[in-house]
Amino acid sequence: MDQNKFPAIIAHCKEYGFVFPSSEIYDGLSAVYDYGQYGAQLKKNIRDYWWKSMTQMHENIVGIDAAIFMHPTTWKASGHVDSFSDPMIDNKDSKKRYRVDHLIEAFAADLPKEEGEALLAKMEILEKDADYAGLKQLIDDNKIKCSVSKTANWTEIRQFNLMFSTQLGSVTDEASEIYLRPETAQGIFVNFLNVQKTGRMKIPFGIAQTGKAFRNEIVARQFIFRMREFEQMEMQFFIRPGTEGEWYAYWKEERMKWHLSLGTSPERYHFKDHVKLAHYAKAAVDIEYEFPIGFKEVEGIHSRGDFDLTQHQIYSKKKLQYFDTEINQNYVPYVIETSIGLDRMFLLTICEAYAEEDLTKDGKEDSRVVLRFPAKLAPTKLAIFPLTKKDGLPEIARELMDQCKSSFYCFYEEKDAIGRRYRRQDAIGTPFCVTIDHQTKEDNMVTIRYRDSMEQERIPLDKVKEIVLNAIS
Amino acid sequence: MDQNKFPAIIAHCKEYGFVFPSSEIYDGLSAVYDYGQYGAQLKKNIRDYWWKSMTQMHENIVGIDAAIFMHPTTWKASGHVDSFSDPMIDNKDSKKRYRVDHLIEAFAADLPKEEGEALLAKMEILEKDADYAGLKQLIDDNKIKCSVSKTANWTEIRQFNLMFSTQLGSVTDEASEIYLRPETAQGIFVNFLNVQKTGRMKIPFGIAQTGKAFRNEIVARQFIFRMREFEQMEMQFFIRPGTEGEWYAYWKEERMKWHLSLGTSPERYHFKDHVKLAHYAKAAVDIEYEFPIGFKEVEGIHSRGDFDLTQHQIYSKKKLQYFDTEINQNYVPYVIETSIGLDRMFLLTICEAYAEEDLTKDGKEDSRVVLRFPAKLAPTKLAIFPLTKKDGLPEIARELMDQCKSSFYCFYEEKDAIGRRYRRQDAIGTPFCVTIDHQTKEDNMVTIRYRDSMEQERIPLDKVKEIVLNAIS
Repeated sequence: MDQNKFPAIIAHCKEYGFVFPSSEIYDGLSAVYDYGQYGAQLKKNIRDYWWKSMTQMHENIVGIDAAIFMHPTTWKASGHVDSFSDPMIDNKDSKKRYRVDHLIEAFAADLPKEEGEALLAKMEILEKDADYAGLKQLIDDNKIKCSVSKTANWTEIRQFNLMFSTQLGSVTDEASEIYLRPETAQGIFVNFLNVQKTGRMKIPFGIAQTGKAFRNEIVARQFIFRMREFEQMEMQFFIRPGTEGEWYAYWKEERMKWHLSLGTSPERYHFKDHVKLAHYAKAAVDIEYEFPIGFKEVEGIHSRGDFDLTQHQIYSKKKLQYFDTEINQNYVPYVIETSIGLDRMFLLTICEAYAEEDLTKDGKEDSRVVLRFPAKLAPTKLAIFPLTKKDGLPEIARELMDQCKSSFYCFYEEKDAIGRRYRRQDAIGTPFCVTIDHQTKEDNMVTIRYRDSMEQERIPLDKVKEIVLNAIS
Repeated sequence: MDQNKFPAIIAHCKEYGFVFPSSEIYDGLSAVYDYGQYGAQLKKNIRDYWWKSMTQMHENIVGIDAAIFMHPTTWKASGHVDSFSDPMIDNKDSKKRYRVDHLIEAFAADLPKEEGEALLAKMEILEKDADYAGLKQLIDDNKIKCSVSKTANWTEIRQFNLMFSTQLGSVTDEASEIYLRPETAQGIFVNFLNVQKTGRMKIPFGIAQTGKAFRNEIVARQFIFRMREFEQMEMQFFIRPGTEGEWYAYWKEERMKWHLSLGTSPERYHFKDHVKLAHYAKAAVDIEYEFPIGFKEVEGIHSRGDFDLTQHQIYSKKKLQYFDTEINQNYVPYVIETSIGLDRMFLLTICEAYAEEDLTKDGKEDSRVVLRFPAKLAPTKLAIFPLTKKDGLPEIARELMDQCKSSFYCFYEEKDAIGRRYRRQDAIGTPFCVTIDHQTKEDNMVTIRYRDSMEQERIPLDKVKEIVLNAIS
């Protein structure tokens, strides 16, 4: 995809009310964004589409909605307190802090190719062993300097935890440090037994949830791709140990099908197996999409074994087991996780939909920006235009509006030339526009105009609702 | 309403997967709750119903989705940094901290009636003047003691801010203290101009949003009624100054209509005007519902004048004005706010729906617990039961399931006696159950059983979907 499209997409998102920098009147907050009037609706539509396809369409998957605040021991058990961190180093002269890997990578990029690669290979081995003394030695040996102070006067390497913390409670001796969840998954694990028992769930079954998560990213960038506050859509699928191979394959395929069901070009997707596996993973793959900034992770499918439930058993001293009546056996279930970033899916949807089209014809210059959203995700489904503000046309338009608006989002506008009204709907991705003109009063026919083809057609007024409903269902 | 119902409702919520204490395996987190499989769906249905009725059904109201993290100056401007706090006092011996008003109220409750009332009247005057020295004197004069240490050895009174704070950013000199938003409203105010301009909105218009908010409540209690993490559904309606009286009346009526549209008993609702107005308010009223614990606030309608936008103008040094073409005038719009607690609306819905019914007949004891949810809010709409697991009945049931499940939530179950299956659906509020029996194979008729009347009826199999769709639309 064309990398130059990215700044244009960001600008379009702001200009048309999809995404604003957070608290922009106060000059924004780094790596935090607000969704505007069309963005909020698009985001909701994506979330609802995921929720319905995962829960309503799967009898053996239920949804929950766990709080952002959780008992702090949760994050000891999950490993986040001890290892959800990046090694950092500070330059003593500039006071600038760097992620160690970024510092070394930047230095390596300026070396001759082979030398650079050798340095990165060394770095990776030290990182894998969490050998901070070794990494510091590597920085010293190569005399790597700070780009601000130009000195190599470094502190020791320290771990910087990515979780946000806050104080719960008011009484000093009762107040406890808690974290904003860095992932929604743990809200599912700690509720595993509650859901299984009260819902009388039989393995295999899944628990899904969507919600905010927070990470104090050192380098947050690339618009809404990596934010400090973001939203996840996660599903944990609990299975009998030994069946993880087949279920991992199943969910890999199922999730890719979900992405393709939205009409996205298949060649813009690929799977990427994890080479370095996280401590909890037995197998892991990313679904990557070709953003204008390159192929990037949108979703991960992870075979987590019994890592999480076992850890919570140890820390909570409560049995988190399932009695499988089919094999008369108690066990800690294995887990296959599907985890997708809602904001990334939003960005994907915009990138996939965004098109700048040259409409020059017969020497007359013309162009448009159109968002070719799948109709079911479009924020507004139908725009209704009386050709003029008088002659009873607004009344007919209003009637159509009243007929349709309880079924889907409609937009009404009676000002400006029809062509300009069409273009504004193109820019926010409305799939259908309908114009009521003087002829309508005679024959009850209206002009429907299709966003993608720009074709116009005369159809009966009383067919409009049906056409839109068919397109979005 | 019967106060004894409250513990029964809380127990029911847990037993049937509506609400669990947060991180329960770690013995919970005070005043934080998780929504289970049926609770999450009920909560989503309430949120969606509000969202649709406020945005989709009102052409001049759009929705946004602003972040929980906001620039910290937002909370200086809104007044939360300086005055969103409770006066607290610590006992030096027990180290126990009290909210000053609670301490005095508890003491007054044990006094003879007139003496107690006189004390509370004095307290209220001092509170209103924020006279902390006076309040401290009142505690000293009455020799009010700590219930733990039994001493009157108190610290001075201090303000305790209810906002949660955390550190954003990693670099020490760049890190800044930010707050978790204590209300969603400010996310709307700071985006006022972005939305108005990019959406080409004309006054009067509204901006709605739903989302999490956080308050470090000193005394959080009464189940999900007062939580430290909760969800709001707020709408700010921007109007021309001078029209606030009519719009305040409009929204008061409109919001009550919304509540009653869910079929709630009107006598369980009343309006309660605020006597003490908040610093930003010109008029304010609560919609109160009669919970088992008494009449309590569910929603507030507030005439906020131009307080918020003016404050943000001052702090951001950016004009937050609107040019009104009808009167050729620039002004800072006035605001009418409607603010409802989603968790409270959830609790209301459960309390209103919950019924313990004595079904004893002809000396045979029987009873049931049923949740009489409005069909459109019920987590599951239809339960499908083959009478037995064989003879081709599950196949017919599956076909019906496949026909219906893309339109609404269905539940399939083939085990246990039909009576027990009905009762379990009653307990989670499913409005319709359908049983497929051997006769169905002959005549394509099924038994539909209505949750509320418990009546059963023979209907054609191919009418089931339509009946449910009619009930929920």
